Amino acid sequence: MLRAAFQGERGAYSEAAAFYFFKDGVETVPYPMFYDVLESTEKGKTEYSILPIENSLEGSVGESYDLLLSTTLNVVGEIYYRIKHCLIGFQELKKIDTVYSHPQALGQCRKFIQEHKLKSVPTYDTAGSVKILLELKSESSACIASKRAAEIYKVPIIKENIEDNANNYTRFLVLAKKRQEKSGKDKTSIIFSIKHVPGALYSILEKFNLNKINLTKIESRPTKSTPWEYNFYVDFEGNENEPNIADVLTRIKENTVFLKVLGSYPRAELS
Amino acid sequence: MLRAAFQGERGAYSEAAAFYFFKDGVETVPYPMFYDVLESTEKGKTEYSILPIENSLEGSVGESYDLLLSTTLNVVGEIYYRIKHCLIGFQELKKIDTVYSHPQALGQCRKFIQEHKLKSVPTYDTAGSVKILLELKSESSACIASKRAAEIYKVPIIKENIEDNANNYTRFLVLAKKRQEKSGKDKTSIIFSIKHVPGALYSILEKFNLNKINLTKIESRPTKSTPWEYNFYVDFEGNENEPNIADVLTRIKENTVFLKVLGSYPRAELS
Repeated sequence: MLRAAFQGERGAYSEAAAFYFFKDGVETVPYPMFYDVLESTEKGKTEYSILPIENSLEGSVGESYDLLLSTTLNVVGEIYYRIKHCLIGFQELKKIDTVYSHPQALGQCRKFIQEHKLKSVPTYDTAGSVKILLELKSESSACIASKRAAEIYKVPIIKENIEDNANNYTRFLVLAKKRQEKSGKDKTSIIFSIKHVPGALYSILEKFNLNKINLTKIESRPTKSTPWEYNFYVDFEGNENEPNIADVLTRIKENTVFLKVLGSYPRAELS
Repeated sequence: MLRAAFQGERGAYSEAAAFYFFKDGVETVPYPMFYDVLESTEKGKTEYSILPIENSLEGSVGESYDLLLSTTLNVVGEIYYRIKHCLIGFQELKKIDTVYSHPQALGQCRKFIQEHKLKSVPTYDTAGSVKILLELKSESSACIASKRAAEIYKVPIIKENIEDNANNYTRFLVLAKKRQEKSGKDKTSIIFSIKHVPGALYSILEKFNLNKINLTKIESRPTKSTPWEYNFYVDFEGNENEPNIADVLTRIKENTVFLKVLGSYPRAELS
């Protein structure tokens, strides 16, 4: 069976996204850091890497963006995965006074936490907070994580779907050594840096606009070499081998210091 | 004495940035969450809020950007503060095998950690990791935090400046109830959202370009209401009351769904 590497403990949302994407099944392999995930695919220990890139409420995952800059892997797919948080613990809700989870998950359940006057304790990982709960043996504590994490660690679910906002999706990228074949309904991801002159970004966006290419995302990340210089991450509709896109990619090279095409891959739909 | 609210434990980089900015002295007041920091200034418990907004290596602080959207405070200043990490603990370096800190700080000292074959344990807060170290009483453990955090908690510094890259600056915004007076060398920060049509962002950038306004930063953050719709955060040189800037601000209203001017404030220099 194909293997997909993910970051976190078993029961992490990244693992659930992998199962959702590979309909015919996949063997998931956990790694502690995003860096280790990509390395495992680069070294052939796994065929795919699953990388969370953006959440519809919290925004971009900076570390993932930085790793896209240096990886030799290609982007071959994307996943939109709906995040549903559960309150997990051994007691009924009215006996709980403290809740453990990752700051993002705590933030996404803020109204629920305030309503029930719970004390928040930030941890490093949602699924990891279930493990912490097991070690604590505190009756009045609970944690916030996925349903799957509750099942894996055999801790009861006190309440499902406790998030404040149902529009809670994470976008994951799927990476592999091989490039993806054209599907007819593709998206392309690129990274570039520009000369430090006023209007440089503008002249690049102008070229996309002239060729009627629809940008779906633009993100800037600092370069590590010079403070407050940026790499730009742009997603747009279409395949890098289509003529109007190949044309823009050739022409923006004049205005970029550096240009990397991460890959073209089938567009995903919100589930 | 004027009071400035900051997020984190005493010894946090945000507190150090406050002392650096208020040359005539300031009383710093710690709060657990960014939300509490702004609320304290909104309610008049403090005159200023210190909010980390971006790091030159790690990128933007998403939670801070989201809070700018809803706060009634004005941006009245910015700070560029150089981040210098220390290894802090009770033993000499060769006896240390484990290091605790916030994932960002661990990431910024990755080479040092690999060279000395240390095991990384992520925590929620740099200054907080010094407190954890005190509770652990483990001789072979150390943590990464600021020099000031080591001094406050009276734990020895094993080694200073262990970060991989010296270009490590965090940009903080200073917020207050009153708007700032014109200084002659200002920067302005705005937030806007656009209609969901191709080329909408492009037509706004075009107006800045025509009026020869130099953009210093553009950042997109998801709106909470609709998945994958964005608010744009733009910084540019000049004061909102200068004619060419007032003109653009009036004209882009045609293309924006929502527009908020956070304030104009004196530009800071890298120290």
